[in-house]
Amino acid sequence: MNLLYTLDLIGTAAFAASGAWAGIRRKMDLFGVLVLAVVTATGGGTLRDILLGDSPPFCFKDETYLYISIAVGLGIFFFHRRLVFLQHPLLYFDAIGLGTFVVIGTGKALDYHMGFIGAVMMGVITATAGGAVRDVLSNQIPLILRKEVYASACLAGGALLFLLHQTSVDPRAAALVAALTVIGLRLLAIRHNWALPRARS
Amino acid sequence: MNLLYTLDLIGTAAFAASGAWAGIRRKMDLFGVLVLAVVTATGGGTLRDILLGDSPPFCFKDETYLYISIAVGLGIFFFHRRLVFLQHPLLYFDAIGLGTFVVIGTGKALDYHMGFIGAVMMGVITATAGGAVRDVLSNQIPLILRKEVYASACLAGGALLFLLHQTSVDPRAAALVAALTVIGLRLLAIRHNWALPRARS
Amino acid sequence: MNLLYTLDLIGTAAFAASGAWAGIRRKMDLFGVLVLAVVTATGGGTLRDILLGDSPPFCFKDETYLYISIAVGLGIFFFHRRLVFLQHPLLYFDAIGLGTFVVIGTGKALDYHMGFIGAVMMGVITATAGGAVRDVLSNQIPLILRKEVYASACLAGGALLFLLHQTSVDPRAAALVAALTVIGLRLLAIRHNWALPRARS
Repeated sequence: MNLLYTLDLIGTAAFAASGAWAGIRRKMDLFGVLVLAVVTATGGGTLRDILLGDSPPFCFKDETYLYISIAVGLGIFFFHRRLVFLQHPLLYFDAIGLGTFVVIGTGKALDYHMGFIGAVMMGVITATAGGAVRDVLSNQIPLILRKEVYASACLAGGALLFLLHQTSVDPRAAALVAALTVIGLRLLAIRHNWALPRARS
Repeated sequence: MNLLYTLDLIGTAAFAASGAWAGIRRKMDLFGVLVLAVVTATGGGTLRDILLGDSPPFCFKDETYLYISIAVGLGIFFFHRRLVFLQHPLLYFDAIGLGTFVVIGTGKALDYHMGFIGAVMMGVITATAGGAVRDVLSNQIPLILRKEVYASACLAGGALLFLLHQTSVDPRAAALVAALTVIGLRLLAIRHNWALPRARS
Repeated sequence: MNLLYTLDLIGTAAFAASGAWAGIRRKMDLFGVLVLAVVTATGGGTLRDILLGDSPPFCFKDETYLYISIAVGLGIFFFHRRLVFLQHPLLYFDAIGLGTFVVIGTGKALDYHMGFIGAVMMGVITATAGGAVRDVLSNQIPLILRKEVYASACLAGGALLFLLHQTSVDPRAAALVAALTVIGLRLLAIRHNWALPRARS
């Protein structure tokens, strides 16, 4: 499915860029910036594959993901001041990555015959664990745990894909619908500044 | 062994509650609170299964653990002010979880023919790694590394189970004795406010 | 290859000492100091084995690594004030560990037929991930991401070993040359206070 692979690589580049920028903001050196780019882009899928017992993880089987992450990290490290204009459009590519990663993660869990919660969790982990590790390495509480609808969009997309998988819907159509749901919810959340409820203290 | 499974689920609920409360104290949103509940309750056993190479980890094979963790997380999120009276009794359920998790972890390592240190470590990891990840995600030094005898109780229980396993003692009796040792030490530590020595600086 | 095994154990002891000292500086209790010693010394190789799918990780197959780490942790915990004179020479043993761990990690990845980036990453992870986890557990941004050429030395050694592996050079000679390269670069970096470029803000 070439469309999914293309979207996957676009999402990888967008996630790597967000990781590299986080490293620059924390005044890391070149190596630190590259580590954050690679971890943000490939950490979620790597954790998913460790949990599924599929080793080595995807990015070591197809090193394209690693080459893209490193190239993006190098580009941002050396030209980040000239690339500031990219930060707003990046949100849109990031949303593409989010939808694609959820669909790939939940889809792979379905191939491994996981149950409902497990399959949805694998989609969410694929899309968000890389960013969580980025934040832990930056000595911050993961953003995903604090103020983003981000995760809800992933939950909705993963659950939708699981349900469509129980029907006779064509798997590729199901993947497309689920990915577009995540992307759409994410863009709406950005536009309307949605947030999940917080517990009253 | 139905008693062990029942105690395991009670411990899971208690650990999930401690994770959910940590999330609420850190002002996380609903998703963050649920993640901390699930990670605290199932993170230790998941890390143990990753290290043993048993994939997918236990909670994806039997999703009961995940459903309980999520249900507890939802309950605490929405009713935590009315549930404050639970915080003290929770310490006792938490101790039950501690003992049960140690016995399950060391027992599983013995099934995998691990050596002494490895088997004891698997018990300690099962019982404490979830809480350590909870603290790392909350941007704190894991409590277990700082001021708890918590870990000593687990070490003692794991070592005892390993030794009993070398004898002709019935495995179920051995598990019960080891679990009760951990629970007893933990409750004594709470009552007498015990602490391990700290290095002089 | 007995020389490599001997160097590996020396490196393990040096890494365990650095972990134990970090725990003492953060005022951890005995258990915390031992955990940091073990994690720093064996965490990198453990993560490598998880990624390669070789379970259980090396230190559970040969518990010598765990016994050494615990013994070093105990020694530093109880005698750290009398052992302060060791802190400077420790840098040299630490460099030996760095070179040995890189060679073992990249060498193992080559046995698993990993690609270039993957093999180099496995060397770097073996040598540095334990220290990164030590820093995360100490609630600090990993030192490796901030101000060390440390990582560059590992990258150079891993890449060199990968390239020599494509030639007809004797594998043991290749391992020795690569390890000495890492050790030499590390010692030069200490002596000349080298640092990688940082992004301008």
